[in-house]
Amino acid sequence: MDANSVLDMVTSTSFGIWFLIGAALVFFMQAGFAMVETGFTRAKSAGNIIMKNLMDFCIGSVVFMFLGFGLMMSEDYIAGVIGAPNLGIFTNYSGFDYSSFVFQLVFCATAATIVSGSMAERTKFSAYCIYSAVISAVVYPIEAGWVWNSAGWLNQLQFVDFAGSAVIHTVGGTTALIGAILVGPRIGKYSKTKSGKIKSNAIPGHSLTLGALGVFILWFGWYGFNGAACTTIESLGSVFLTTTVATGAATVSCMIFTWIKDGKPDVGMCLNASLAGLVAITAPCASVDALGAFIIGIVAGILVDVVVELLDKKLHIDDPVGAVGVHMANGIWGTLAVGLFATGKGEGAFVDGSALAGLFYGGGFKLLGIQALGICAIVAYVVVAMTIVFQIIKHTIGLRVSAEDEIIGMDVAEHGLSSAYADFMSTTPAYNGEVAEEVDLKGVKPVDLTLGTKATGKYTQVSVICPEDKFGALRDTMNAIGVTGMTVTQVMGCGVEKGHLGRYKGVPTSMNLYPKVKVDIVVSTVDPGLVVAAAQKAIGTEHRGSGKIFVSDVEDVMRVRTGETGYDALND
Amino acid sequence: MDANSVLDMVTSTSFGIWFLIGAALVFFMQAGFAMVETGFTRAKSAGNIIMKNLMDFCIGSVVFMFLGFGLMMSEDYIAGVIGAPNLGIFTNYSGFDYSSFVFQLVFCATAATIVSGSMAERTKFSAYCIYSAVISAVVYPIEAGWVWNSAGWLNQLQFVDFAGSAVIHTVGGTTALIGAILVGPRIGKYSKTKSGKIKSNAIPGHSLTLGALGVFILWFGWYGFNGAACTTIESLGSVFLTTTVATGAATVSCMIFTWIKDGKPDVGMCLNASLAGLVAITAPCASVDALGAFIIGIVAGILVDVVVELLDKKLHIDDPVGAVGVHMANGIWGTLAVGLFATGKGEGAFVDGSALAGLFYGGGFKLLGIQALGICAIVAYVVVAMTIVFQIIKHTIGLRVSAEDEIIGMDVAEHGLSSAYADFMSTTPAYNGEVAEEVDLKGVKPVDLTLGTKATGKYTQVSVICPEDKFGALRDTMNAIGVTGMTVTQVMGCGVEKGHLGRYKGVPTSMNLYPKVKVDIVVSTVDPGLVVAAAQKAIGTEHRGSGKIFVSDVEDVMRVRTGETGYDALND
Amino acid sequence: MDANSVLDMVTSTSFGIWFLIGAALVFFMQAGFAMVETGFTRAKSAGNIIMKNLMDFCIGSVVFMFLGFGLMMSEDYIAGVIGAPNLGIFTNYSGFDYSSFVFQLVFCATAATIVSGSMAERTKFSAYCIYSAVISAVVYPIEAGWVWNSAGWLNQLQFVDFAGSAVIHTVGGTTALIGAILVGPRIGKYSKTKSGKIKSNAIPGHSLTLGALGVFILWFGWYGFNGAACTTIESLGSVFLTTTVATGAATVSCMIFTWIKDGKPDVGMCLNASLAGLVAITAPCASVDALGAFIIGIVAGILVDVVVELLDKKLHIDDPVGAVGVHMANGIWGTLAVGLFATGKGEGAFVDGSALAGLFYGGGFKLLGIQALGICAIVAYVVVAMTIVFQIIKHTIGLRVSAEDEIIGMDVAEHGLSSAYADFMSTTPAYNGEVAEEVDLKGVKPVDLTLGTKATGKYTQVSVICPEDKFGALRDTMNAIGVTGMTVTQVMGCGVEKGHLGRYKGVPTSMNLYPKVKVDIVVSTVDPGLVVAAAQKAIGTEHRGSGKIFVSDVEDVMRVRTGETGYDALND
Repeated sequence: MDANSVLDMVTSTSFGIWFLIGAALVFFMQAGFAMVETGFTRAKSAGNIIMKNLMDFCIGSVVFMFLGFGLMMSEDYIAGVIGAPNLGIFTNYSGFDYSSFVFQLVFCATAATIVSGSMAERTKFSAYCIYSAVISAVVYPIEAGWVWNSAGWLNQLQFVDFAGSAVIHTVGGTTALIGAILVGPRIGKYSKTKSGKIKSNAIPGHSLTLGALGVFILWFGWYGFNGAACTTIESLGSVFLTTTVATGAATVSCMIFTWIKDGKPDVGMCLNASLAGLVAITAPCASVDALGAFIIGIVAGILVDVVVELLDKKLHIDDPVGAVGVHMANGIWGTLAVGLFATGKGEGAFVDGSALAGLFYGGGFKLLGIQALGICAIVAYVVVAMTIVFQIIKHTIGLRVSAEDEIIGMDVAEHGLSSAYADFMSTTPAYNGEVAEEVDLKGVKPVDLTLGTKATGKYTQVSVICPEDKFGALRDTMNAIGVTGMTVTQVMGCGVEKGHLGRYKGVPTSMNLYPKVKVDIVVSTVDPGLVVAAAQKAIGTEHRGSGKIFVSDVEDVMRVRTGETGYDALND
Repeated sequence: MDANSVLDMVTSTSFGIWFLIGAALVFFMQAGFAMVETGFTRAKSAGNIIMKNLMDFCIGSVVFMFLGFGLMMSEDYIAGVIGAPNLGIFTNYSGFDYSSFVFQLVFCATAATIVSGSMAERTKFSAYCIYSAVISAVVYPIEAGWVWNSAGWLNQLQFVDFAGSAVIHTVGGTTALIGAILVGPRIGKYSKTKSGKIKSNAIPGHSLTLGALGVFILWFGWYGFNGAACTTIESLGSVFLTTTVATGAATVSCMIFTWIKDGKPDVGMCLNASLAGLVAITAPCASVDALGAFIIGIVAGILVDVVVELLDKKLHIDDPVGAVGVHMANGIWGTLAVGLFATGKGEGAFVDGSALAGLFYGGGFKLLGIQALGICAIVAYVVVAMTIVFQIIKHTIGLRVSAEDEIIGMDVAEHGLSSAYADFMSTTPAYNGEVAEEVDLKGVKPVDLTLGTKATGKYTQVSVICPEDKFGALRDTMNAIGVTGMTVTQVMGCGVEKGHLGRYKGVPTSMNLYPKVKVDIVVSTVDPGLVVAAAQKAIGTEHRGSGKIFVSDVEDVMRVRTGETGYDALND
Repeated sequence: MDANSVLDMVTSTSFGIWFLIGAALVFFMQAGFAMVETGFTRAKSAGNIIMKNLMDFCIGSVVFMFLGFGLMMSEDYIAGVIGAPNLGIFTNYSGFDYSSFVFQLVFCATAATIVSGSMAERTKFSAYCIYSAVISAVVYPIEAGWVWNSAGWLNQLQFVDFAGSAVIHTVGGTTALIGAILVGPRIGKYSKTKSGKIKSNAIPGHSLTLGALGVFILWFGWYGFNGAACTTIESLGSVFLTTTVATGAATVSCMIFTWIKDGKPDVGMCLNASLAGLVAITAPCASVDALGAFIIGIVAGILVDVVVELLDKKLHIDDPVGAVGVHMANGIWGTLAVGLFATGKGEGAFVDGSALAGLFYGGGFKLLGIQALGICAIVAYVVVAMTIVFQIIKHTIGLRVSAEDEIIGMDVAEHGLSSAYADFMSTTPAYNGEVAEEVDLKGVKPVDLTLGTKATGKYTQVSVICPEDKFGALRDTMNAIGVTGMTVTQVMGCGVEKGHLGRYKGVPTSMNLYPKVKVDIVVSTVDPGLVVAAAQKAIGTEHRGSGKIFVSDVEDVMRVRTGETGYDALND
């Protein structure tokens, strides 16, 4: 065997394995997207965001298998614009390239999942499923084939998008923009001042730490995203380098930019800037050198901040996670950057053995022109295609949940999930509407309270403090005796019921805290003595730590909706 | 050198590296299990679940080194059922296959960790450590050797379990079932209605987002789990494909199934369905084609839901995370599915150069029969072995914590950890029972309050609002003056202590919120004026934002346990 | 081609890819550090910790590119101690080893990030950025070059540190110690008892689950950290084995040690022990056998506990995450352990074809002496260099934030981030100081309340319960009518506003819980009727669930700072 044959064998095996490891890393980016999108939105919709991210990939994998992969990668490619659908995956066991299918699938799912962030917290789940199926089955595969099917018209034109700044991020980001416009802003996001101006209100997410974890996962996975298609060690090393340098530079430039502009370095925006750097370097990662990557990153870190603020404060488009600024703006920037910074030597710029260089590297305007044409064609195609898709959904099953459902939160409204953090929020027994164990109230007599209540014509508050697991029984029992409202607070009960826990280095330890709920009930017509007696029946045990009940006067009460005060406020 | 020699050299090096990368991915699944199990159980046991998951792997690695690996993989294998124990790892430096040891270890630890979910929130930590040592040292290695030691009797019979649907998941899931039955349901999980029926109460977990992250991590790691043993690019590509397709199909089928059955798509169940699809495709991943994987997945997604509901609602077995439905049911299904869908061409179905095909692929009942025999033997063995192990533990040191410890939570009871989220829950200074800085009460005089308390014979509530870091001193000071109970709430204090923070686009910014605790104390015999004075001494500083104290009347009070009201309820 | 040429080609390609995969795994450890450090510190500084971890890597990548890499790895290495700075990365496209740069960069960033944990919650962000730039640009590259540049003086001496116990962890840990001493303990960490002794107070973190996730991520990434530089399958397999065994043993030994010492197995310390085992095996991972790794791990698991307690309880140095015990103590232990346990056969012990063995493996004291010399030199260098750096920072821009900023938390003070968990904590509209929609109070008349307030000269509490999204308007409206303080609690409102949700298996479902905020306002001079009327105006809608307002008497009030009671306590 000669050296070239050996090298081919080594390369095809080693890089064949790396190709699949890269695909696994790209799959893992789904976890990153899920964490970013849920962390940067509100807790009441956390389960819904997770479900959308999960379904993006799962619905995508089904439809891409039946339709999308054929449209994109079929060898039977029609007129440079679309593949002939086929079911080779099912029928052609030995000839089918399984690795390639998995690889294309995980990339496809990335494009789809970008959109869930911009449309978060108000989009119907059923509508989202349909959108997700259509983009993975048809919209994405067609334009991706233009660039990555060797018979595609942009591929033929020598358009360079090594890992998908245009094919994936610009497409996902543009769809995110259209979706955010058509579904409209979340309730409370924009308000009018007395002078009639529209004001943008910040709606912070519920967990910056989960969001940050998501960014780190995405960055980690991006080494697979950008590097998976490399076929030499040199190009793989350079892709790792450009990816790292651009992202580091973007994050630092954003930190400095926000520090100067706003007086303090902005954590959330810097996390977005890391993603912006990654998106921007995706197309040029194999075409540029370290200096090019550095400059591309610096621009990306500032661009994301400018576009996010433009969208929010000027255009009043509500994109909860900044998907448009990250993926659309920087996807376009990265695609064009190839035309500026390509050295003419990298793997991503090779076409037929000869590589085009960018404007700043002596290649003139040719490559920049090709890149501009390509990105315009792709954006135009996506705007048309996705507007049609979303409008059809909007005018059939509807894009948006009701205002009432949106206020309650998507988790309850769309999934019957009381909360993604139910145990954190003391709603345990209310979960999925089941009733708790029934309490037998036969023979329960009102307690004789030392109250002046009825005498003074005022109202009485009964505050019950009890273990969390008794709440369901208490709630239903109160319901049974005619109480129509209550306020529940998660508290810590501190008592000596466990006595001194021992001695710690000779010092007696003090009282301990246990999680409890406090349930406040204000009554007028219902006898407060009966409330106390029924509550004791519902929650009483023989154990220490069963709780306490406090009774106090309330002077007045108002129902806010109607403005009714006193007796009327407490009774329908 | 001829081409075959070169190919061997390439393959052994490239796939040798991949084998270890795969092992690292399988290790990472421990993070996934930890997140799934902690996310889907309650916050008060989060630290305990983490500790169990950590110790599963760590205890496992020690005992597998000293005993398990020999029992499983020894070349000196006795009668097809057990290896001769040896310490080759310590004595045979150059001849020992380190890669293989690490690989087998990470798989072994996976089997062990499945069980912690089903026995969560009520199993003694010491009992769990013993169980974990026994399964990793003895129970798992024996049956795993049957299948994966080339001298094992099931291996000889051509039983196919490429990555462990039977060897790992069915074994872990069956053990989970036995453990859940023997340890019994959590307090409050099942209750009797007035009509005497047993009712299942939902006990939701504390973080669906962490649970979802765990599922994504598991899925990512599963590419290593299923693919690590592949030795050709073709088979590795097909394993990635079948793993992806089955899991996607399972998740979609579960979504549709729950949507139709319950009216809404169930987030938690769909996450379980992803795991179910992964478990089911584990045995057949290298033996089936895309269509087979698709059907296996669809069945898995429905099967998991049916088994979870059967266990909970009919059999009343409390499996907090659904381990039985995911791992046992789908482990069995996946093992049998090889006998139905094996194409006769995949790596996992090759035996002595000739591959058996499944029932639907023209192979008749032979392979299905082998698979059925194998799974029956493994389940029977595990049921007997683990029942003995758990019964011995139960009747010696005991399997279950006391009811009191279970209600307080495993973190406090088993690990002296006030909470895994202590800083979130304002229990900071109560941590591990240490007393806070002592407050010198000498010379403290009761404050002269404008109270009618003693005159009216009522009770008084003193509400102290102060920074969180003062709580410990306040608690101990109150304890010192005879206060025996208090209720602590995490609140946000809103004041003008920082003044206007500046102007934002010309608009003066408003009051800011700071985290505080509110401590409510109700007293009768203790002078409320003294409570106020002592509290001020304990928490007072010269800084703005030190807090406020409010005093108000309480009309009556009841101790729930005894039903005592008034004075008696506040004094022992 | 002969077999050796083929083997070289296979090895350079296969291990070249693995080298980069290893680098990606090491990058992912940044996520692990971020989670460990944020989980084990308080929620009010979570965003700041994330930002520091992100910036460590990003600032590091920029300065390492411009300066650090040259100082460390330059072929033009001066006198065995420092490389000549160069910009080869920008100028030498085809000759530059990109893989090596990425690899060295991710290791460098690890050293830097260790420090953020020990200085958490009180270090100025600007000071931290400067420290981070200096360590990555100068301090780390110089000593790392001593060991890993083939011309470095410790390299020449045959000092063995395969993956960085000394070069990275001891350096990071020592810097962490110096930083923690110079910045001083957090407020409230140490207090004096009446007898004048200094007492250490536990300040638990806010999420043990995130911390544990971080540990699992770090362990996973460590397979890359320790294994990336291996160049044969045998050594890679042995590195995976020693890494796993040492870590498992460390965790188990710590569990047993804390169980015996404190009566209960300590979750947080066992997580630290896993990291301690990983740090200790980092230098010797390629030089020792399974037994050596096992013993190294056992020692590490106990050492970390002893050092953490020594620092906290005896030396009163506040290291919030235990960085000194994990990285410095075990970095030193691991470095010395090479001199004790090196077999003389592993990759990490080979020097010029001949390997030195450790003391216990027949090599005498030579290797141990070299290791001791090396670690002393490195520690001495770092102590001097970092003391100078921190002292310069301290005496110019300052190391530490003000006490006021520390109490409020770093997120608000340093980043204008109200909370990393803002939506969890009901502070939504207070975010970044923006005002909410302005409420027009023209024509609002005080409500006629059935109060005896003015008559009795007491104070009145108005409690408003409303949806979270109305809080901003309520707060600003209250501010507008002269209310200067309020207490905000996150509660669940339970009512029949949605009516019966349906029937579940024939049983009517009960009341549902919705998230609300409860705002308590106590007034004296402000008319409570006006408070009620203005609040209704601010939060009122036509929807059910708009909220309720309760009015009750308060007997007295004290401002803690001044001790003023009654009227004075409520007015400035």
